[in-house]
Amino acid sequence: MRIKPSIPKGMRDFSAEIIAKRNYIFDTVKQIFECYSYTPIETPAMENMNTLTGKYGEEGDKLIFKILNSGDYLSKTKLDGNITSQKLTPDISAKALRYDLTVPFARYVAQNRNNITFPFKRYQMQKVWRADKPQKGRFREFSQCDADVIGTTSLLCEVELVQIYDDVFTKLNIPRINIRLNNRKVLSGMIELMEATNKFNDVISILDKINSIGFDKAILLLSNKGISNKGIDIFKEFVDIKEITKLSTLLSNSKLGSEGVRELEFIAETISNIGLKSSTLKLDTSLARGLDYYTGTILEVQVEDIEIGSIGGGGRYDDLTGIFSLNDVSGVGISFGIDRIYLVMEELNCFPSEISKKTKLMFTNLGKKEVNYCLTLLRKFRDANIASEIYPQEVKLKKQMEYANKKGIEFVVIVGDDEINSGVLTVKDMNSGEQKKMIVEDLITRFI
Amino acid sequence: MRIKPSIPKGMRDFSAEIIAKRNYIFDTVKQIFECYSYTPIETPAMENMNTLTGKYGEEGDKLIFKILNSGDYLSKTKLDGNITSQKLTPDISAKALRYDLTVPFARYVAQNRNNITFPFKRYQMQKVWRADKPQKGRFREFSQCDADVIGTTSLLCEVELVQIYDDVFTKLNIPRINIRLNNRKVLSGMIELMEATNKFNDVISILDKINSIGFDKAILLLSNKGISNKGIDIFKEFVDIKEITKLSTLLSNSKLGSEGVRELEFIAETISNIGLKSSTLKLDTSLARGLDYYTGTILEVQVEDIEIGSIGGGGRYDDLTGIFSLNDVSGVGISFGIDRIYLVMEELNCFPSEISKKTKLMFTNLGKKEVNYCLTLLRKFRDANIASEIYPQEVKLKKQMEYANKKGIEFVVIVGDDEINSGVLTVKDMNSGEQKKMIVEDLITRFI
Repeated sequence: MRIKPSIPKGMRDFSAEIIAKRNYIFDTVKQIFECYSYTPIETPAMENMNTLTGKYGEEGDKLIFKILNSGDYLSKTKLDGNITSQKLTPDISAKALRYDLTVPFARYVAQNRNNITFPFKRYQMQKVWRADKPQKGRFREFSQCDADVIGTTSLLCEVELVQIYDDVFTKLNIPRINIRLNNRKVLSGMIELMEATNKFNDVISILDKINSIGFDKAILLLSNKGISNKGIDIFKEFVDIKEITKLSTLLSNSKLGSEGVRELEFIAETISNIGLKSSTLKLDTSLARGLDYYTGTILEVQVEDIEIGSIGGGGRYDDLTGIFSLNDVSGVGISFGIDRIYLVMEELNCFPSEISKKTKLMFTNLGKKEVNYCLTLLRKFRDANIASEIYPQEVKLKKQMEYANKKGIEFVVIVGDDEINSGVLTVKDMNSGEQKKMIVEDLITRFI
Repeated sequence: MRIKPSIPKGMRDFSAEIIAKRNYIFDTVKQIFECYSYTPIETPAMENMNTLTGKYGEEGDKLIFKILNSGDYLSKTKLDGNITSQKLTPDISAKALRYDLTVPFARYVAQNRNNITFPFKRYQMQKVWRADKPQKGRFREFSQCDADVIGTTSLLCEVELVQIYDDVFTKLNIPRINIRLNNRKVLSGMIELMEATNKFNDVISILDKINSIGFDKAILLLSNKGISNKGIDIFKEFVDIKEITKLSTLLSNSKLGSEGVRELEFIAETISNIGLKSSTLKLDTSLARGLDYYTGTILEVQVEDIEIGSIGGGGRYDDLTGIFSLNDVSGVGISFGIDRIYLVMEELNCFPSEISKKTKLMFTNLGKKEVNYCLTLLRKFRDANIASEIYPQEVKLKKQMEYANKKGIEFVVIVGDDEINSGVLTVKDMNSGEQKKMIVEDLITRFI
């Protein structure tokens, strides 16, 4: 059977050029993480099903890629007329692919609690998989880059994570980065004042969508959920606030709200003392971050010049490992959206021009004797770590030159009888078209 | 529900220390690949089912991890009393996890044939998944590192791949590497002489197992398969041969066999001219390599000092992309067994002593004022790319020191009132226990 070669939708092959650009981003993030004393961990692509299910909400659970059990997986199931996909799944699938890096991290910490030095500063850069509907900038296989500190409530961690965002985006040369800052306790305070504590999740969910649905629609939704006019007025006043001092006044009667305000103050003041390189840290009272597990600081990063949504985000969680029987461990983390960062850098022309490691030089293949001569020279170039090759077949010189040209090789070394006899090589600069006579040592020095 | 944290069997978490060692191997292999002018590609973890099935034999197919279709996957199936796992699978699973890098590479080449410059020299370093029975050194998730040249029959590629093995293992400092060389055409010649051409696969399969089952058992199996005594005598004579010249005499009447001998001669002579750094290239007529698709050169790498099986292997294939409607494209490739190489390097103590990137220095946390002072200093260290941190909480100094000690941090900088007033830091060398007074600039210079 002949097969038309294709890949599953929402998935991608990466060519050398794209890999070079992606690695440029990964390496930059990694270098900054390590500079801030975070160390890497890696977890397997698959986790046991019960590690993953129930952590991402009902919608999230549907998007988890499940692995069919090996062997005769039906042998232990009872199939009757009433069987549904939903009922069958737990019987035929015990493992699933990683959906994010946060839950595997929580599992890792709980499992290795006795070998970990707390506070534990870890980073993780791995692929995740989601059976989401593919669209521009959204893929079914994509990379996440996370840094988390777990085992301390210190707000110095938040400060550090803001600095990391600033360092990375400065180094990547992406201009006009806004780091939006808010706090879940502040949101709780607002909801208290709105007298809507029993509708916490509804309010958070509406707030989370405010940038996409607009302010008026958000008000309508709140009203539909039974929030009073007085509550809505407080909501309006709240999302309009741009300064922490105003927030402080508004929330002075809420204990939790005031605690959140003090946390915001600490982060803002400390950052203001140290200074940021190129980013701006902004209070954004409309920032909610949908995820259930956040309990304190929340952060999101946006590029002012491009409408692409957030390119990073994170926050503090007080009980991520509780589900794995490790309680009272507070942590805070951030994530980089590598695929979106890639798109932003392409659009704003942020990549350095010489990014992919091209082959420096190619020897032509003019016959057996010539090849033997070249192979010995080639050994010298490779020993000097100069990426180099010899055209593998004795074909027309024109074809060999075309190959070098298409591959973007910088120099072609032509070796025939004359060159062997004289020991002087004919070197063609593929950019200028210029041809020179050189001895091998000089050519090697050219690249070092 | 509380969950005992665990991972699926045959899968592994990696800590920072292990990642550093693994990356040392990956980076070395990658650097050599690039020095030989190979460029990277990456393919998705999942492939369409028809890309994978039928490529690894019946046993292989069973070991492929299959992805359960998303949504109501039963809605398009007919379940009746006769349904079996085998019959149901194609209806409920359209995708599967990568089983090796060779088939996705063939798919990639066929799919991108119009954008690829041939001969195409690519390398690929990614994870693969197999539902194999886990045992020592065999995992269900593991990394492969492959380099292939596709689109030329030139034996210079084989020469280059032998050099790559030699360069990598020399650089990794693994002593006494044997690169075993054979050729499928030579095996065909032998089987011709044995008058067993119709039993080619049986003979290859027995030969492939000869090192594990032993010589006598192999002879018995051949006899059971109906190979004549004369045929068995030829087999015995054949597997005993250590020199290419003897092989040449024995196979002089076989056209295909003689072609294989000439190929072996070319590779051996060329390598002998260039020279190897530390490895030994050896003819091994008992080398078969189980995989169906090899048609010419076959290679396998072993460490003389350790019984661990092969740590690398590869060969030439004439029609890997034919199944994807791209015909007559010959290629040759090699693979590095990273997990076994890791075990070998551990056992032979090949890793450099200072391999993991440890944090260089930690500031103590003695209170709000001190922290603010330290944060400004910390900024200077991080700007100089010196991995550094501040202890996040104001706890007893002893606890902070313990943390630094457990993390293997080199220096602890103690900053209290005296240090702030004088601008001279108290620096404790955690290895020697020695305490010094230093100004920040000198401390930074210490690390650059």
